[in-house]
Amino acid sequence: MEFRYPIKIRAVWWEGNKVCWIDTRKLPFREEIYCSNDPLRVAKAIIEMEIRGAPAIGVAAALAIASYAKELLEDNTYRDKFDNILKNAVKLLWETRPTAYNLFWALKRISSIIDLELDPHEKTSRLVEEALDIMREDIEANIKLGEYGAELIDHEDTILTHCNAGALATAAFGTVGGIIRVAWYTGKKIKIITTETRPVLQGARLNVWEYSREGIPITLITDSMAAFVIRKGLVNKVIVGADRITRKGYVVNKIGTYGIALAAKRHNIPFYVAAPTSTIDLGSSVDDVVIEERNPDEIRKVMDKPITLPEIPVYNYAFDITDPDLVTAIITEKGVVYPPFEENLAKIVKK
Amino acid sequence: MEFRYPIKIRAVWWEGNKVCWIDTRKLPFREEIYCSNDPLRVAKAIIEMEIRGAPAIGVAAALAIASYAKELLEDNTYRDKFDNILKNAVKLLWETRPTAYNLFWALKRISSIIDLELDPHEKTSRLVEEALDIMREDIEANIKLGEYGAELIDHEDTILTHCNAGALATAAFGTVGGIIRVAWYTGKKIKIITTETRPVLQGARLNVWEYSREGIPITLITDSMAAFVIRKGLVNKVIVGADRITRKGYVVNKIGTYGIALAAKRHNIPFYVAAPTSTIDLGSSVDDVVIEERNPDEIRKVMDKPITLPEIPVYNYAFDITDPDLVTAIITEKGVVYPPFEENLAKIVKK
Repeated sequence: MEFRYPIKIRAVWWEGNKVCWIDTRKLPFREEIYCSNDPLRVAKAIIEMEIRGAPAIGVAAALAIASYAKELLEDNTYRDKFDNILKNAVKLLWETRPTAYNLFWALKRISSIIDLELDPHEKTSRLVEEALDIMREDIEANIKLGEYGAELIDHEDTILTHCNAGALATAAFGTVGGIIRVAWYTGKKIKIITTETRPVLQGARLNVWEYSREGIPITLITDSMAAFVIRKGLVNKVIVGADRITRKGYVVNKIGTYGIALAAKRHNIPFYVAAPTSTIDLGSSVDDVVIEERNPDEIRKVMDKPITLPEIPVYNYAFDITDPDLVTAIITEKGVVYPPFEENLAKIVKK
Repeated sequence: MEFRYPIKIRAVWWEGNKVCWIDTRKLPFREEIYCSNDPLRVAKAIIEMEIRGAPAIGVAAALAIASYAKELLEDNTYRDKFDNILKNAVKLLWETRPTAYNLFWALKRISSIIDLELDPHEKTSRLVEEALDIMREDIEANIKLGEYGAELIDHEDTILTHCNAGALATAAFGTVGGIIRVAWYTGKKIKIITTETRPVLQGARLNVWEYSREGIPITLITDSMAAFVIRKGLVNKVIVGADRITRKGYVVNKIGTYGIALAAKRHNIPFYVAAPTSTIDLGSSVDDVVIEERNPDEIRKVMDKPITLPEIPVYNYAFDITDPDLVTAIITEKGVVYPPFEENLAKIVKK
């Protein structure tokens, strides 16, 4: 696959008829790569956040079904049950994480192929084609999104981001990462400030690894420091990703996003959301959104080290919700969407 | 010393002519107690945050000078240089941490005794008396503050707090802790939500230890979760401590406070600051406040475990500033101060 910009970091890819991924839990300390054609293994990788980031999850799930179909073809035993087995695998992957809309979007595309009246060989070819399309479209969308977004970035801007919406959250290139990369590759001397992003530390582990690897200056802060660095005037723009955007423009993203949006509003800093249109769920309202609650030990420990008493009750909401009035614009691969979001999101999705 | 409520947890106390303290860095995993009459050792304990919390630091510094004077009296060698040695010790302690106003307030009281024309024995007695007064007044202030504050708390309220302003941040009883204790001891079935409070994790380590030890229900969240739990309606009131309050009511407190204040404002939740009047610096404006920047490794590590690449640049502001318009009231030992703060803070300090 050829693209307009160099693809230096990939999170999920297709190799030897398998889906491969970098285990993001081990970064920045170890670069471990796994490949599999077993949907159960890929589901585990998604649940345990070896693979994370809404677009990356969607791509991985699609590739997992395609690779599984390839595997099933090898053994005639399963010929009768081919569709059913694949549908069960889709169901398994569907239930890995409840919030990322791209996962459902990708699996719906894959399911529509499974539902076609085709013989298993033909169907498998189509599944591989569709999964690779989803992957290629993800990277192309990120590049386009990056180009639209980079127009909003000025030379020497400092950009605050939260969690990782970079190459490691997509097949490659990233959404927020796409904007940062296009700005950087086209000569804008930007700087990044990233929160550490507790509990899973995607900022401290992934953003730091991903951007410093490409020489893009990055400074690390705690989540608690975001409002104050904005107050001090150290930030020109905030850009975050999204796991789901509702019809009216409510943005579901990594826990902590909402607080940063409030600080950006207070200090009149643009608050941009970078997300492919596959993240936009025109059918959903904010009340429909299921906010995933994860394992309490993510809060009680940091990278497996206990930081508190073992049985203490915790809340572990993985995502929060940012109201549309706090969002300056949503940057997609089809263009930049400004308020009123209800009207303009519908337009961009149909474009 | 006798008080109106039980004193179950002490952070700093006087024992055998020495200042003693619990090493808060080791909590909740180990309860280690140290005693010393060496100002250098106490300064180290303050710098390295074995002793932390503005009132506790002030008490510890005062007791350190008193215990040092006791020690110096034993040896005639130092008789000529008694005042000078003590003044140097004051200077050493003065420079341990730049933001906590109570430290300067306590050391000024101690210095005014050193400056008296008295023989060393008499002066030492007066220094011990003054330091013990500072300690006793701290506890009494917290109890009074707690009683004023508890009137604002309703039965079954859930209180969100940030960092530790409990017994472990004062000589005993706490400021925020005082309010929580009086409410709890008088039968209000409150619940606490505490942030973990990165980077030093005073919430996860100290609040969890301090309140669960007394059976007060406490739930732990990440700092990034504060705005969302407020948005979800899980919080009735926010109460935080303060390291310094300026003439106009700007509140300098643990990094992360400002973001929580913005969220409380957005959702019309009362945002209370609990602080003795010794925290109020009528002579300062917000521009005078020095915000301490601490060791970058506090950000790069969590309890000594690396969470990112070793050389990555960081910001490590220990405190932030909350604007007066975000503060519902400031709860002191002399009463509750409402806006306009410039007028009413001056009145309460002189009361």
